[in-house]
Parts: sequence; structure tokens; C-alpha cells
Amino acid sequence: MTLDAVLTQIDTDLDASVERLKDLLRIPSISTDPAFKDDCQTAADWLVSDLASFGVEAEKRQTPGHPMVIGHVGTGAPHLMFYGHYDVQPVDPLSLWNRDPFDPAIEETPKGKVIRGRGACDDKGQLMTFMEAFRAWKAVHGSFPCAITFIFEGEEESGSPSLIPFLKEYKDELSQPDMAMICDTGLFNRDTPAITTMLRGLLGEEITIKAADKDLHSGMFGGPAINPIRVLTRIIASLHDETGRITVPGFYDGVPELSNSLKAQWENLGFDAKGFLGDVDLSVPAGEMGRSVLEMIWSRPTCEVNGISGGYTGDGFKTVLPAEATAKISFRLVGTQDPFAIRENFRKVVRDMLPEDCTVEFSDHGASQASVMSTEDPSFEAARLALSDEWPRPAAFIGCGGSIPIAGYFQEYLGLPSMLIGFGNDDDQLHSPNEKYDLRSFHKGIRSWARVLDAIVK
Amino acid sequence: MTLDAVLTQIDTDLDASVERLKDLLRIPSISTDPAFKDDCQTAADWLVSDLASFGVEAEKRQTPGHPMVIGHVGTGAPHLMFYGHYDVQPVDPLSLWNRDPFDPAIEETPKGKVIRGRGACDDKGQLMTFMEAFRAWKAVHGSFPCAITFIFEGEEESGSPSLIPFLKEYKDELSQPDMAMICDTGLFNRDTPAITTMLRGLLGEEITIKAADKDLHSGMFGGPAINPIRVLTRIIASLHDETGRITVPGFYDGVPELSNSLKAQWENLGFDAKGFLGDVDLSVPAGEMGRSVLEMIWSRPTCEVNGISGGYTGDGFKTVLPAEATAKISFRLVGTQDPFAIRENFRKVVRDMLPEDCTVEFSDHGASQASVMSTEDPSFEAARLALSDEWPRPAAFIGCGGSIPIAGYFQEYLGLPSMLIGFGNDDDQLHSPNEKYDLRSFHKGIRSWARVLDAIVK
Repeated sequence: MTLDAVLTQIDTDLDASVERLKDLLRIPSISTDPAFKDDCQTAADWLVSDLASFGVEAEKRQTPGHPMVIGHVGTGAPHLMFYGHYDVQPVDPLSLWNRDPFDPAIEETPKGKVIRGRGACDDKGQLMTFMEAFRAWKAVHGSFPCAITFIFEGEEESGSPSLIPFLKEYKDELSQPDMAMICDTGLFNRDTPAITTMLRGLLGEEITIKAADKDLHSGMFGGPAINPIRVLTRIIASLHDETGRITVPGFYDGVPELSNSLKAQWENLGFDAKGFLGDVDLSVPAGEMGRSVLEMIWSRPTCEVNGISGGYTGDGFKTVLPAEATAKISFRLVGTQDPFAIRENFRKVVRDMLPEDCTVEFSDHGASQASVMSTEDPSFEAARLALSDEWPRPAAFIGCGGSIPIAGYFQEYLGLPSMLIGFGNDDDQLHSPNEKYDLRSFHKGIRSWARVLDAIVK
Repeated sequence: MTLDAVLTQIDTDLDASVERLKDLLRIPSISTDPAFKDDCQTAADWLVSDLASFGVEAEKRQTPGHPMVIGHVGTGAPHLMFYGHYDVQPVDPLSLWNRDPFDPAIEETPKGKVIRGRGACDDKGQLMTFMEAFRAWKAVHGSFPCAITFIFEGEEESGSPSLIPFLKEYKDELSQPDMAMICDTGLFNRDTPAITTMLRGLLGEEITIKAADKDLHSGMFGGPAINPIRVLTRIIASLHDETGRITVPGFYDGVPELSNSLKAQWENLGFDAKGFLGDVDLSVPAGEMGRSVLEMIWSRPTCEVNGISGGYTGDGFKTVLPAEATAKISFRLVGTQDPFAIRENFRKVVRDMLPEDCTVEFSDHGASQASVMSTEDPSFEAARLALSDEWPRPAAFIGCGGSIPIAGYFQEYLGLPSMLIGFGNDDDQLHSPNEKYDLRSFHKGIRSWARVLDAIVK
């Protein structure tokens, strides 16, 4: 019954927990703006001191940018590393806020109470969920459930320039844990918690097709002179077949089919595909035929043109035959798809389609493999059941169409798998004016961590 | 032998002819720049006075823009209308000129003497070729060879906004002539004169494909959300088949095959297709298979993408799924191709290829039919032979890949066919710094007109 005692302690202490979160939210730790450099130091100091208040010895470690906060406490398996970031996004346009973004307060809304302020969700509110869970655990038990490492970053919103050097420098220390717990994701919906176990990778390519050595007049040269826009559009049009599959040879190597259990979990989520598309004025899933929308986003790879340009694109008309045309193309990757092999195969496809007199230049815009957490580790199922106990609907292992680089970095530089659990809602206004975190997310988030800890260490 | 007398008179008077041209070139009649409004009036006055100097009664007629100069003289068939324009292009960047653009002079160059200055070729030098031919004719004969109308425009370089209203207003007067003679084209090459009898028409279309109601994140929506760039590239890629033919239904209706005599003339021109493409760093004709480069440019229709844009096109990379994508597409038309029918068929092709959730917006950027002069009128062959007598190599009826709108306007608003003869060279630097006109073009151009007049009125 000690879990119940911890949960009760959490409920009792909630008002104080909110006050602590408000304290942290008052620090304008905008990492991208040098004017707030000292505030980032202040936020790191606040975390060191808050960790100390429930018995964690922690320290601020300087980097060329904003400092990291590292703390260790407890003993016993598994050794868990908790990650969060204390920096926040800029607040402009300030005029669109309904209050001072750094004067947080509880507000009543039609959907319930929220904590309003910059960073309320991303990521101060979320990181305080596990801080408060540990505080309650310590209050009830007098100790921690297992070996815990805390790592707080101050540059997540500005591209994490110091992170990889830091992980390399402290590799011996930071690769000790068995798993990283990352609290920077969302609920599946208001009632359904989620553990994100599949993050798509990303391969970015820019191709520039060149033909004549200058722009030509289409009256003078139209006909005999090759038009690089035409060449580019033919290449792009060839990248998908009629069923929406990508035609680059070997592209589907390493793309796994969903397990039946995952398929069942996803079907059980009651995802409103129609509403999801309807929100952006679409009605028909446009990806691979025979796949559900959730599959398309979470577990299927894509090839998208993110930008295209060539010739005259201003107002009016100019009968130019351009000397070159460019497209930015990205591939979302899943499973064990190899971004480097795909890059080579894609470039070969482009080269093979080049007509005489055309050349191509490629620019590399990054290549990262998908992150797929092995849910065979029993901690995952234990955590899933623990979350299911706290929330109205059962938790699911879900995917994420975008990428959360930190999980990839922990894997690559520390050899650590990650478990991504978070309590954000779609309407939290991350990076936008009037950011908020539901009080319910905060409260049940704290309780969720207590349950997850209890389940994992059992 | 009176033609010989006229030619001798032209040779004798050449220095004075050059001085008159230099007088006209000194007037900075830049039509597009309001700062030179008075200079355009001055240039028109100069023409009225120069026409008067060899017995043509002419007058300046005001328009909402720059004035037209109209003069009539002579009697007898055929009634010929000579067109030229006295306005010139701006001169910037001035720093690239080797002299004051409005202080013309004869310069020695490796290819012979040239008259250097803005408008030296386009179109003051060219229009003075027929002025000087008439002056010499009048001096020798005391009269003119037939009924002549002169029409000089001052807005050709700024889109001719007043021209069509003017042609409509003076239709009764200006539709009296049998044919318009337009001196604003070039030699085929330095030794080969040409009569341009085929001008391609132009249809301009802009299409914008729209999908979601806002730009989307490709991580969040990549897969199920349709990408308008992909839709656009598929449409564009479908517009040509593997042989380079355009696939729009009915597109080739009204595209004539070349007559054998024209084919023979063109083959005889010794056109250096390799050099033409090599000049812009190309080597292989990219148009319809089985057509020569000259055919492609002069007598075959095209479909070209002149511009394309969509999504993120700045530096770096953004994983956006754009809400829309746009292309500017033009068709060069020949023979009796109907631009309006082609526009309808093209739009239908686009609409038929639109997937669910996509809409398209079309913008109309003009539609003009090809101009094809009927060379069955014996004047054409007479003029061709006359030009052949003056120049080292026989003259040819040629096409022009671009459009010369004035010929279309005379046809449409006055019912007048046009004969396009000019003496420009490819290296005349029209619209660019250091514009010039070969003294040889000027001299032999004047002599050419005397021969053509003599041949036509015979």
C-alpha cells in the first residue's frame, strides 16, 4: 500500500507543487536570446536547489552555451536517467498573450483549470511531474526507489549545440544508467496516456538540376533547349507509384510490419482520422493505399517534397527557360531503414534519370535513423499498465511522425534506450502565445510517475 | 537603270545618313521612364521634321502616353505602311557602357565599323534604313514609288499601351494600306538576309494547386496529407510524352508541316545547330524527336514551365508540407493553333488529374495566335530576290521563335498582313549596354529597301 501513500502525499501536496512550478515558470529562461543568458543560469540554479530540497545532490555544469544540471541519487536497479529541459521558447508576439508569459497563474477554462505561462508544458511543467513524484516518494519512503540520474538541459529550444560534446565528455558517468526517461511528449488524447516507442528518422536531400549556362529566352530557345524544371518534375513524379509507394530501389528494406498486438492497441485508440484530416480541410488519406492514417504517420516511411523552385516566380509572367531548378526532398524513415543506403539509392535514381546536357548537385540536409524502442524490455509493459491505472483509458505504445532528437542522441552517444512518457495535450500552444499545461496533466502526470516507478522497480 | 542611280545616291549620301542617325540617337527617348517624357516628344518632332525634309507631310498625334508620328505620301499600288519605333530601352547599368549611350559615334571593331549608342539598332538605326532609302529614291526620281504611310510609335519598349486604342481610333485611315513593312528584325546571319514570315504565338497560364488550409509539419502529417507539390509535378511531368510531343488533347490541331520549298530554304541556310546550342553550353536538341533545331524554334509548338514554386525555398531545410504550389506554364503556338481551345483543353487536363482534396486556380497570362504571313503574295518572293541581290547569300523566309506583337496587332486591328525585314545581328546588344548597329547593316539595309521597293512596285 505504499504506492497509495505516495499518491495521497501527491494529492495533499498539489497546491505546493503548483507554487513550485510557478516559481520556475517566473524565470524567463529563453535560451535562444542572449539577453536571457543570466536567466538560464538562474533556472539551472533553481533546479539544483529544488533537487537539494528533496535530498538530491546536484550541480550545475557549464558548457560553451547554457549550463547542464546533473544530479545522482539512490541505489539499486534499474538505474534510470530522467531528462528534461529548463529553457523555453521566445514569447513574441507578446501582444497575443492574455497575460504576462512569465507571470504564471491558474486559469479556469471550459476544459478545466490550466497553468498558463511560457514553458508551462514545454518543458518546465512536464519535468516538474517527475520532480514532484520523487519528492513525494522521498517524503513517504525516506529514500528513492532505485538509482536515479537527473539531466537537465538549457538549450533544447535552440538546437542543443552543447549537448553532444557534453554527452561525449561525461560518457563514462552518463552511460551508467540502464534507460533514459524523457518527459517531453504528449498524451494520445485527453483520457489516453501513451508511451512513444517509435520515432521516425529523417533524411534531407536538396537537388539542383542544371542545364544551360544561363537563363534563356523561351522564344529563342524553347524547343531545342532542355528545361531543368521539366527534368526535375519528371524525377519527382517518378518517386511514387500509383499506390503511393516510394519507388527508390531498396527503400522498403528494414520497414517492419506492425505486430498484431500493436495493431490491436492502435485500433483500440479510437483515433478520429476524419477529424484529424478535417482539421486542416482534408478528407482523404493520401499516403500508401491500404494503410490507416495512424500507420502512415507512426510506422510508415514517406518521401515528401518540402520545397521547389525554378525560373521566374514573381508576379506576372516571364518567358524564361531557367538554367536550373531545385527541390528540397525529405524522407521520414522507420524501423531499421538505413538513411545512408537510401541516400545513395535516391541519388542514383536521380542521376539515372538525368538527360543529356543536365547535371545535378546534391546537398545533404541530415540523415537520422528511426528510433524504435524495444518494448520487449518488461519495463515498457509495466509502465504501460501503470499509466493505464491512472488514466480513464488504457495506455498505448504509439509512434511519433516527427523526430525527438534527444532519444537518438542518448542511443548513439550513451548506448541508452529511452522511454518517452509525457502528459501534454494537443491544445497546449507549445511555442505559441498563451502556452498552458492542464492542471489535470500536471496532477495526474505526477501520480503517473509514481505509479510507473513503483511498477518498474517491483 | 534607275535602281542603280538610287543605289549610287545612297552610297554617296552615306556619311550624311549616318549624321542624321546620330542626331536621332542623341535624343534620350526612353519611353518607360517619365523623366524622359519630353525627349520622346522631341524624338517624334525630329521624325516629323526629317520626313518633311524629303517631302513627306507628317504629324505628331498625341496619345495618353507618348505620341505617334503619322505621315502619308505618294500614290499608286501597292500601298505600303512602314512601321518603326523611336523609343529606346533604359541604359542602366551605365557603368558597363564604353561611352555615353546618347553620344553616338562610329567605332572600329574586329568585325568592322559600328554605330554605337542606345537605339543604334533597336529601332532607330533600323527605321532610318527605310527613311534614307525613301530620301534617296525621292532625290533620284523626284517622287515616291507608290502610296506610302509611315507610322512611328514611341511606346514599343514599354508595352505599347496606347497602340491598340490608336489603331482602333484611326482604323479607317490606317487600314487603307495593303501591307505593313516592319523593320525590327534581324539578318539570318551576317551574310544572309531574311524575311520573317512565321512568328510563334504565346499562351501563358499560371496554375496554383491547393490542398490543406495551411502549411503542415511533415512529421505530423507526412503520409496522410496530400502534398500539392507532388500533384503539380505529376501534372507537369505528364504534359510531354517520351518523344517530346505535348500530350494536351487536340494540341497539334492546326500545326502545319513545312512545305518542301521552305524546308529546302532552311536546309540551305547552313544553320549551325551545334554552335547555337553550344553557345549556352548545351549539345543535344531536347525538343520533339525527328525535328531539326530550326524547325523546333520556328515552326513547332512548345510547352514550357517558366517558373515553379512551393514550400520552403530559402537556405537550409524546413520539413513543411505546403498548402499550395504554383507553376507558370507557357505554350508557343504555330500555324492556326487556337490558343483559347488549347487553354480549355489544358485546364481540363489539370482538373482531370486533381486528386481528392485538391483545388486548382488558374491565372490567364495572355493568349495570342501565331502570325503566319502568306508568302503566296508575289511581293514576298520579289522582296526575297531583291534582298538576295544585295547580300552575299540568298535571302530566306524564316520563322521567329518569339513573338513580335505589332504584326499581330496590324493583322487583328487593321486587317493588314506584314512583311518583316530587318538587318540586326545577334551581337547588337539590344536592351543591353554598348548597343550597336553595324555600319554595314545600316548601309546595306538602306540599299536593301531601295531594291525591295523597286522589286515590289515593278
